[in-house]
Order: sequence, then C-alpha cells, then structure tokens
Amino acid sequence: MSAFPSPQDITTITCVGAGTIGGGWAAYFLARGYTVRVWDPSPVAGERLARLIDAAWPALAELDMVDGADKDAWSVHTDLAEAVAGAGFVQESAPEDLDLKRRLFADLDAVCDPGVVIGSSTSGYAMTEMATEVTHADRFVVGHPFNPPYLIPLVEVVGGERSSQEAVDWAAAFYTRIGKSVIRMDREVPGFIANRLQEALWREALHMIDNGEATVEQIDRSITDGPGLRWPFHGPMLTFHLAGGEGGMAHMLDHFGPSLKSPWTRLTAPELTQALRDDVVAGCEEESGERTISDLIAERDAGIVALRKLTGSGISPAPTASESTATPGGA
Amino acid sequence: MSAFPSPQDITTITCVGAGTIGGGWAAYFLARGYTVRVWDPSPVAGERLARLIDAAWPALAELDMVDGADKDAWSVHTDLAEAVAGAGFVQESAPEDLDLKRRLFADLDAVCDPGVVIGSSTSGYAMTEMATEVTHADRFVVGHPFNPPYLIPLVEVVGGERSSQEAVDWAAAFYTRIGKSVIRMDREVPGFIANRLQEALWREALHMIDNGEATVEQIDRSITDGPGLRWPFHGPMLTFHLAGGEGGMAHMLDHFGPSLKSPWTRLTAPELTQALRDDVVAGCEEESGERTISDLIAERDAGIVALRKLTGSGISPAPTASESTATPGGA
Repeated sequence: MSAFPSPQDITTITCVGAGTIGGGWAAYFLARGYTVRVWDPSPVAGERLARLIDAAWPALAELDMVDGADKDAWSVHTDLAEAVAGAGFVQESAPEDLDLKRRLFADLDAVCDPGVVIGSSTSGYAMTEMATEVTHADRFVVGHPFNPPYLIPLVEVVGGERSSQEAVDWAAAFYTRIGKSVIRMDREVPGFIANRLQEALWREALHMIDNGEATVEQIDRSITDGPGLRWPFHGPMLTFHLAGGEGGMAHMLDHFGPSLKSPWTRLTAPELTQALRDDVVAGCEEESGERTISDLIAERDAGIVALRKLTGSGISPAPTASESTATPGGA
Repeated sequence: MSAFPSPQDITTITCVGAGTIGGGWAAYFLARGYTVRVWDPSPVAGERLARLIDAAWPALAELDMVDGADKDAWSVHTDLAEAVAGAGFVQESAPEDLDLKRRLFADLDAVCDPGVVIGSSTSGYAMTEMATEVTHADRFVVGHPFNPPYLIPLVEVVGGERSSQEAVDWAAAFYTRIGKSVIRMDREVPGFIANRLQEALWREALHMIDNGEATVEQIDRSITDGPGLRWPFHGPMLTFHLAGGEGGMAHMLDHFGPSLKSPWTRLTAPELTQALRDDVVAGCEEESGERTISDLIAERDAGIVALRKLTGSGISPAPTASESTATPGGA
C-alpha cells in the first residue's frame, strides 16, 4: 500500500493518450490550473491537441476555469518516463483495447512513483481485468468521464479487486476537488451506471431502425422534443416519481407496475417484488428530501421553460395578426 | 369515411378525462385559444383542473400562449353527449385500462359526429386493440403526449388498422398547427418510439437497483450530470455521431461496433449487419444536413454551457482568494 499525496498538493497531471477523451481531459486540467504533460505516440498529437484546447477554451472560461489557468501549460512526449516526470496524478485515455491497456498499465506502473494514483477513462472494462500485469495494483482505479470531459461533470469512480480503498477514496476526492460530479461505485459492474442506461436506450434504438419501426431522425427527435427535455433536471427515477401524481413513485409502481409486462422494449423487466418496489419508493423520497411533489413539478416546469427557450425546441412561431384574431390554434 | 373539418375551423375541443395528462392537455388547448369542454366522472374534477391550470398558466404564457387565450374558457360535464357538444376534436386521456378504453370509445363513437377526429393519449395501447367496439373506426387515432403535455412538444401520431389515412393526416396537421412536434409513425409499435426508449432505460435502472448495483440517487445523477446534458440538443444517434470524432457515426460503428457484444445492459443488441450500419450512418448524415462535425460540436458545447448555467449542474464554487492563489485545482 502506498501513501498518496494530498490532492491539493498536486500541480502536474499526465494525460496518457490525447484523442477526443484524453485531449478533453487535458483541456479541463489546464482550465483548473494544472500543468499538463501528455503522452501520445501520434506524430500529429500536439497539433490535434492544440486545436482541441482552442475549441474548448471559451466554454471552459464560462464554467469551470480558475484564476491563473494557462492555456499553454502543456507539453507532448513520446517517452512515457519523461511524460510522467513530476506528475501527481495520471489520467489514462488510450483506445478501448484490453491487451493495449494491460501492456500500457504495466509500462505506467514501472515508470510512476507508487504514490501516484492512475485513473482510467475506460468506458467499459473492469479494473480487475485491466490491471493484471502490474506490481502496484492498489493505485489503479477507473475514473470514467463523459464526452466532452471538459463540459460534462459526471465521473464514475470504481476500483478493481486489487485496488486499495485508499486509492479509490483519493480519486473520488481528487475529481470532486476539481469540480466533477463523482459517482462512487462499490462494485465493478460492466458499463458502470450511465453507460448501462444509455446503452440500453441505444440498443433499443438500433433494433427499431433494424426493423423499420423508426428512422434515425424520429429517434433523435423523440428524445430532444420529449423525455430529453426533462432529464437534465430530474433523472429517470424522479421523472417517474412525478408521473405518479400526488402519490409519487409509490402510486406509480402500484398502478403502472403491470406495464412492466408490456412488450414496450426488447429488455425484459425484473420482477416487481415488494422489496424492489419499497427500495425504489424510499430512494425517490430520500432524493426528493424536503421537496414536495408540487415543488418538484414547479422546478421541472421552470427548467423546461428555460431549456425550451434555449433550444427553440418546438417553439411555435408567433401567430400573425390576421391568424391570431381570426381563429384559435395560433399559427 | 368521413369528411373532417379543416383544423383551422375548430374552436372547441373536448378533453375526456382530466387527470395529470387530460388536465395538462386542457391547459394547453386553452393557451392556444380554444374553448375546452371536459368530461370527467370525478366529483372533484373541476377543482383539481382549476388548480392544474393555475399552476401551468405562467409557463404557458412564456412559451405557447396565443393572444386572446382565456384561462377560464372551460367547463366540466358528467354527461358525455353534453361534453362533446360543438367540439371539433376530442382528446381522450382516460386511465390506462383496455376494457375501460374500449367501452369509452364505443360511447364516444355514439355521441360524436362522424366528422370529429378522436385522439387518444394512451401511452402504450395500439388503436387496433382499443377501437374494437366502434362503428366509425376511421376517425380514431393515437395522439400520445408526454408529461407535462402543456410543456413537452412531442406528440406521437399513429393510426390503427381501421383508422383512415385521412384521419391520421388530419391529427398530424392539427397537432402541428397548435405548436406540437409531431412524429407520425407508419406502423403500430407497442410503446411507440419514445416510450420504448425510455422504458429500456427504466428497466435497466430497475435491474440495477434490484441487484444492489446502483442507488436511485446514483441512477438519476448519472443522467442529470451526464448524458442528460446532451440529449436536449442532440438525441442518442447524433450524440454517438459525435463520439466517432471526425469520422462520425461510420467510424463509431466500424470501431466500436464490437462493444454491442459487451454485457453493458441486459438488452441484447441486434446483429450489426452492413445494412443496419449503412442505415444508421445515412440517417445521421441526413439529420446533420449542412452541419459538419465541428458545427455539431460547437452547437452541443454552447447548449451544454447554457444548460449547466441554468441547472447549476456540477458548477464548481468559485475558489476563495487564498485557495486560488495557493494551489491549482480550485475550490
């Protein structure tokens, strides 16, 4: 087991891989005031990263940038030992190839001080299956971001069987410190949480296209003009909490539970046992906290109004004078 | 077959059922300048509807209200024939109970002029299975809204086997005229489109809670602070179009296609045939139109910045003076 430095003592971070995800992380770390060292074997890595940082910087300046952030505080290296020199944390974002990750982790383990935590951006591999060739397995954890990492707050943090609790704690504290919304998982689940949910939706969409049941455009619009307008404010659970009216999730499950048997997706539902029902109801009540159903509805509505003004989604054109006086229904 | 009135000649609409959905429709129709007649057997229907309209009116005034909209232009009736008198359109939003819908449709069919289209808010029944006891089956169509119907633009329109093309056309034109975002489906698919997608996500979430893999709060936050921040701007298809970098959906499917075999959800994926791959790629290119990948990225980023300012999602507190000068990483 290693003694990790306090997250606030870190000044330099190494990004291993500078593609869409690794480059996005580099831009974010720069905006948070860190010096960034990049390892990437591509001869055009530096040029590509400069473009990515240029594109991301204005958005970062609006949301997460700290005073003194230096857009140019980065360097690209092709030697791994050189790339990790002085780094207090390493974020790995290499291509999703298990053998490649295993070899890379072994190389990283050999050149990094054992006191450095190594976080992986993997979107689906378990740390237990990736960290098989390393000596200091305790400091390897998953820190899974979402595209683009410089704008989406979510980071899923989970360790493997050989990761230390201390390293997982450290990574969660570090990502939280730099402004991320951290979900710390206790167990390794393939796809983590958010990817399991969006992958279920994506697979259902592919089935529908495959069967000629919907077009790409219809699938996208069914989300952007429908449920997608609610999800930034309330996730799927609180959304259905509101679908139950004043009775909330309890009413929803007790009355619409049988619809789980409907063939509304290719995904078979779990049995709605009393225990599952009670867990879901209790979770919604806990998440709602002091907010009543009416409070949540007001919150959702205010959010949707502002969001629809933003996206212009479904905003009706203003009726012309002749139309607005002649008939109801507007333009 | 019936001759339906031109949508612009309608001045009165009947809402059958005034719960969360039916009441939401009533508020929306009022905001669009219609007179609304409500049929609801509950003795507290009027009182409940008044509260719902009061709550919805300010949001409606911000987005969809036409000049001259009258918040009080509604009446509640317990006699069905009286409720539909003078109505040019009927929106049915009774509880999701197939026998009840069948009986109600027979009753509605008997009291409504054959020239009146009847739209159903059903969230999952096919019109073919609901309109079994009616004479004028041609004018019954599904017009499925999303909660709350006074704010979410999406309406899915689809007919049953005995619905006329003319009635489906009419309903699509009518909902479009009143400012809705209409998806017109050619085939009856259980759960339509958006509910199939959100139901897949919901079932995956229930499995995760059932197995102790995630809590209700983690599931919601994995969406609100993650993919949910992208979906109001780009649906799941265009989102993955961007995950492919400059190569778009073609690169995404050609390189990440094998991940469809990963156990990232309980939903089995379809075989990624060349035909399916080509359909998805062509659909994304068509939907993107003139917009390049860079345009789409800029659009997404501007949207997420504005949305995160709106929700406060993951916004880091401003670093204090001492912290911001002392160390990188901010507060």
